Amino acid sequence: MAILSVTELKQLGLDVLRKAGAPDQAAASVIEALVSAELEGIASHGYARLPFYLDQALSGKIKADARPVAAVKAPAAVMVDAGFGFAFPAIEAGLQEAFPRALEQGVCALGVTRSHHCGSLGYHVEKCARAGLTALAFSNTPAAMAPWGGSKAVFGTNPVAFACPRGADDPLVIDLSLSKVARGKVVMAQKKGLPIPEGWALDANGAPTTDPDKALGGTMLPLGDAKGSALALIVEIMAAGLTGANFAEEASSMFTADGPPPGIGQFFILINGAAFTPGFREHVERLLLSISGQEGARLPGDRRISERAKRLQGGVELPDALFEDLRKRCQAV
Amino acid sequence: MAILSVTELKQLGLDVLRKAGAPDQAAASVIEALVSAELEGIASHGYARLPFYLDQALSGKIKADARPVAAVKAPAAVMVDAGFGFAFPAIEAGLQEAFPRALEQGVCALGVTRSHHCGSLGYHVEKCARAGLTALAFSNTPAAMAPWGGSKAVFGTNPVAFACPRGADDPLVIDLSLSKVARGKVVMAQKKGLPIPEGWALDANGAPTTDPDKALGGTMLPLGDAKGSALALIVEIMAAGLTGANFAEEASSMFTADGPPPGIGQFFILINGAAFTPGFREHVERLLLSISGQEGARLPGDRRISERAKRLQGGVELPDALFEDLRKRCQAV
Repeated sequence: MAILSVTELKQLGLDVLRKAGAPDQAAASVIEALVSAELEGIASHGYARLPFYLDQALSGKIKADARPVAAVKAPAAVMVDAGFGFAFPAIEAGLQEAFPRALEQGVCALGVTRSHHCGSLGYHVEKCARAGLTALAFSNTPAAMAPWGGSKAVFGTNPVAFACPRGADDPLVIDLSLSKVARGKVVMAQKKGLPIPEGWALDANGAPTTDPDKALGGTMLPLGDAKGSALALIVEIMAAGLTGANFAEEASSMFTADGPPPGIGQFFILINGAAFTPGFREHVERLLLSISGQEGARLPGDRRISERAKRLQGGVELPDALFEDLRKRCQAV
Repeated sequence: MAILSVTELKQLGLDVLRKAGAPDQAAASVIEALVSAELEGIASHGYARLPFYLDQALSGKIKADARPVAAVKAPAAVMVDAGFGFAFPAIEAGLQEAFPRALEQGVCALGVTRSHHCGSLGYHVEKCARAGLTALAFSNTPAAMAPWGGSKAVFGTNPVAFACPRGADDPLVIDLSLSKVARGKVVMAQKKGLPIPEGWALDANGAPTTDPDKALGGTMLPLGDAKGSALALIVEIMAAGLTGANFAEEASSMFTADGPPPGIGQFFILINGAAFTPGFREHVERLLLSISGQEGARLPGDRRISERAKRLQGGVELPDALFEDLRKRCQAV
C-alpha cells in the first residue's frame, strides 16, 4: 500500500486528469469528490475509479472538456446538460443555481442529463445540507438488476441519497444503492480475486452465483425483493425519466472505454425545511438523539465521519498497483 | 360475506361517519379513499379501518369536525394543519393548493401536520398523476420498527408512494411500506386467528415470532435490513421532521380510541415532468413497456387496476361481522 497525504493525493489526481484533457475546474470538481470518498473509506467510489475515467476521457467516451450549462426551466426547476462530460462539475453547476431557488421557493429540483458516474451520491447531498437544505437525490446507472420476476436487467443498482442539516454536528447523510449490495463491491471482489456471498447476484441465466465475473455478467438482486424492484423503478423514472437521460438498459458501461457515452441522469430535490416548519432542525435532532442513544443502534453515516477524521490525520492508502498506474499516467508523453 | 354495490358501500360509509360527527365534506373525502381501497382489494386499508376511525371520532381522538387549512409558506411550499382531524380532507385541501403551484413552479411540496391515518398512500399520489404531476409521498406511522441494531421501535412502517402519468393508460402507481410486510397484514392475521410467517416481525424481546399478537406488541422487521432501516429514517424525517408532526415514537395508536391523537405527518413532492423534459411521458413509456413486455415481470400496481375493474362489475365483499358492526352503528341512537 502507498500512503499519501491529502495534498499529495489531490495533486496526483489533478495531474492525471489534466493529462487526460480535463480543464482545471472540471478536474478540481472530480478530484474533490474522489478524495472525499477515499477519506471516508469508500474505496469503490474513490481513486479506484480514476483509471476507468481516464481511459474514457482519452477515448472520448467522457468528453473531459464539456462545459455544463444550467438552465432554469421554471422558478423551482433547473436542468443541467452535462454534455457527456464528467458528472461532478455538472452537478456542481446545477446545485449552485438551485440552492438560492430552494431557499426562496421552499423547494427546488435539479435534473442532470447526458451525465456520467456521480461517485458517492451522499457526497453531493452533504453539500446541500451544508448549504442549509434537506436533499433527496437519485441516480440511475447502467443495467444491473432485472425487474422482479423477470430475467433481463432494466434497472441499475440505482442509488438514493438523503441529507439534512443538523445544529452543530455534521449533516446526517444517508447513501444506499437498491441492490442488496453495491455493484462496486462485486467489482472490488473481482479485482481481488475473491468470491462473493450467495444472495448478492444471479448469473446470466438467472441462477445464484458466488463468482464475481459471472455476477457482473448477470444481474444484481434488489434489496427487499419485489419492493426493492419497485423502488428501483422509482429511481429510474426520477433520475432518467424526468431528465430525458438514457435508461439503464440504454446506458453503456462506465468501466470500459469503448462505445457511446453512458448518458445517464441524476435528479435532486432540495427542500428548505425551515420554510415548512420553523423549528425543523431542533425537531429532527430529537429523533436523531433518540436513535443514537439507543443501545446497539447508530445513525447511518456515523462510520464515514470517523473514517474521515482518521485519514485526515494519517493519510490515505492506495493499493500499490493503482498508485503505480496513476504515476505512470502522469509521466506518459 | 356481504356483497355491496359501490353505491351501497358508499352510502353505508357516509352514514356511519356522519353519525360519528363528520361534516359532509370530510365524510365524503374519507369514504372516497376507503372505497377506492376496497375496490382495489386492499382490505387492510378499506372499510376494516372504519370501526377504528369511528371509535376515535366518538372519543375525540379524531376531531371529526376539524377544518383543515392550507397555508402557502413559500411559492413552492404548502403546509396543511389537519387539526387532529381525518387525514383525507386535509391532504385533499393541500393538494388542491399545491397542484397549480407545481405546474407553474416546476415543483411544489406539501406538508401535512397533526394528521392521522392516510389510508393507502398510493390513492393520493394517483390523484396527483391524474392531474398531470409526478408525485412522491411519505407518511410516518406509530412506532413499529426498531433502528437497525436496536430493539426499541422509533420508526413506523413508513410507507412511500410514487405515481406518474402515462399517455392513455392509468397512471403508474407504486405504494409500499418499509417493513418487510405491511403492519396491516399482521392485523388481518390477528383478526383471522392465523399465524404469520417467520421473518416478518420480532416480539417485544427482539426474538423472531409467528404469533400476530406478539408481533403487534414487538417490532416489525424492515425490508433490506440496515438499508431498509435507513430508508425508514428518511421517511420519518420527510413526513414528520419537515412537518413538525409527532415522530413515530410520540404517536399514539391508530387502532385504539383512548389517549391523545396520533398527530403524525405526511409529505408530498409534486413534479411537473414536462417542465424538466418536454417528452417526459413518451420517454418513461418506453421504460414501462420494456418492463411489462418482459416474461415473468409486471409493473407495480397492475393487480390493483384489474381488481378495481372486477369489483366495479361484481360489487365489493365485506366480512359479515364488519358489515353488521357498521349497520348497527348506523341505527344506534
